Amino acid sequence: MFSVEQKSKPRRPGRPEGVTHTREGILTAAEHVFAEKGFSAPLREVAQKAKTTTSLINYYFESKLGLIEALLLSRGEAITKDRMERLKSLLSQDTPPTAEDLVKAFLIPITEMRRTPATRRYLKLQSWLHMEPSDYAFVLRRKLYQEATEAYTDALIAALSDTPQEVIYWRYILTVGAYLYAASDTNRLEEISGGLCNPDDTDELARQVTAFVSGGFMGAAPKKATED
Amino acid sequence: MFSVEQKSKPRRPGRPEGVTHTREGILTAAEHVFAEKGFSAPLREVAQKAKTTTSLINYYFESKLGLIEALLLSRGEAITKDRMERLKSLLSQDTPPTAEDLVKAFLIPITEMRRTPATRRYLKLQSWLHMEPSDYAFVLRRKLYQEATEAYTDALIAALSDTPQEVIYWRYILTVGAYLYAASDTNRLEEISGGLCNPDDTDELARQVTAFVSGGFMGAAPKKATED
Repeated sequence: MFSVEQKSKPRRPGRPEGVTHTREGILTAAEHVFAEKGFSAPLREVAQKAKTTTSLINYYFESKLGLIEALLLSRGEAITKDRMERLKSLLSQDTPPTAEDLVKAFLIPITEMRRTPATRRYLKLQSWLHMEPSDYAFVLRRKLYQEATEAYTDALIAALSDTPQEVIYWRYILTVGAYLYAASDTNRLEEISGGLCNPDDTDELARQVTAFVSGGFMGAAPKKATED
Repeated sequence: MFSVEQKSKPRRPGRPEGVTHTREGILTAAEHVFAEKGFSAPLREVAQKAKTTTSLINYYFESKLGLIEALLLSRGEAITKDRMERLKSLLSQDTPPTAEDLVKAFLIPITEMRRTPATRRYLKLQSWLHMEPSDYAFVLRRKLYQEATEAYTDALIAALSDTPQEVIYWRYILTVGAYLYAASDTNRLEEISGGLCNPDDTDELARQVTAFVSGGFMGAAPKKATED
């Protein structure tokens, strides 16, 4: 008697038996679990959520770090691509872009991600990646963001030629912190404003972050230590 | 024959036997473990680090959450006290404080915490608390920071009377995100600046955050949606 198992097409060597789930199903489950519990959530929970086994996860992604990397690269590469296209478009215009143009182009691909539950979960993962002290987080962020970081800081240095370069780098880091927290779903904006501000209003969030960060970039550079 | 144990003064009822460590030793161990691994690190690791048992930790702090709360309150209350004293001093002067005065007074108690390894570990815990989606994190942040948040946003609203109130609340949140990330030890400032910026230079960090955030607060308010 032939079982259903024997009739199915041959599996790839080493793939664990008795599982039917795809790579994509595992990635979706991982996005849910890690967005809710952080990257410290055990792989076992991802397997449970995906109704599969940790063996199959390891088969596809080699390790938990491999899974996290695949998860972050999938959407992170789209952000970088979008940022680079917007920058290219700004730089191809007749007049050079202002700091505000650059800030806006840099932020749109991120603020747009708040519009669907899945991309919003990605934002949460991204925030955690930025607070993660492990080496893998640095390596992964370099891989994901270095291209856009270099291109935008170069463009900001050109647009703000009176501002010392080191001030631009500091302000780039302060910008990343500001938007990560504003978009994190863990700030107390609604509570501290007595309901005056709605953190779920993505258009408003984009306008507020852009205006604040533009003001920050265009504000006076700090005095040198010796001038204090 | 009397053992040393029998000669010691009577223990409080319920305190587990055979442990000699103090409440403070457990807090120090917890600060190390959680700063390195996040709040998801098991209580067992704190016990190992403190050379004690999870029973004794639970005896002193009731639960892991109780331990986290005690840990964060110890230094967090000092930050709030310092912020409130600086604000009171500014408000008692003849001329009302500017937004920059207020930003500076708000930030100093935080940037000063980068100066010792122990207080710097606290900053890392604080960053994680701000990214933690659990209810306990919201409750704890309200308890730790609400007083200073209210007092400073009120003072900023008075100092920037042309800026709509909701913009001040957004900018307060963006400020918190900016300084948390700048002080987090996980940003790539040194790397992206090619070594031009030193994230360990606390005086420089204080100047850079204050200048950026002051520029952000004083910059133009975003246009309303209907004006776009």
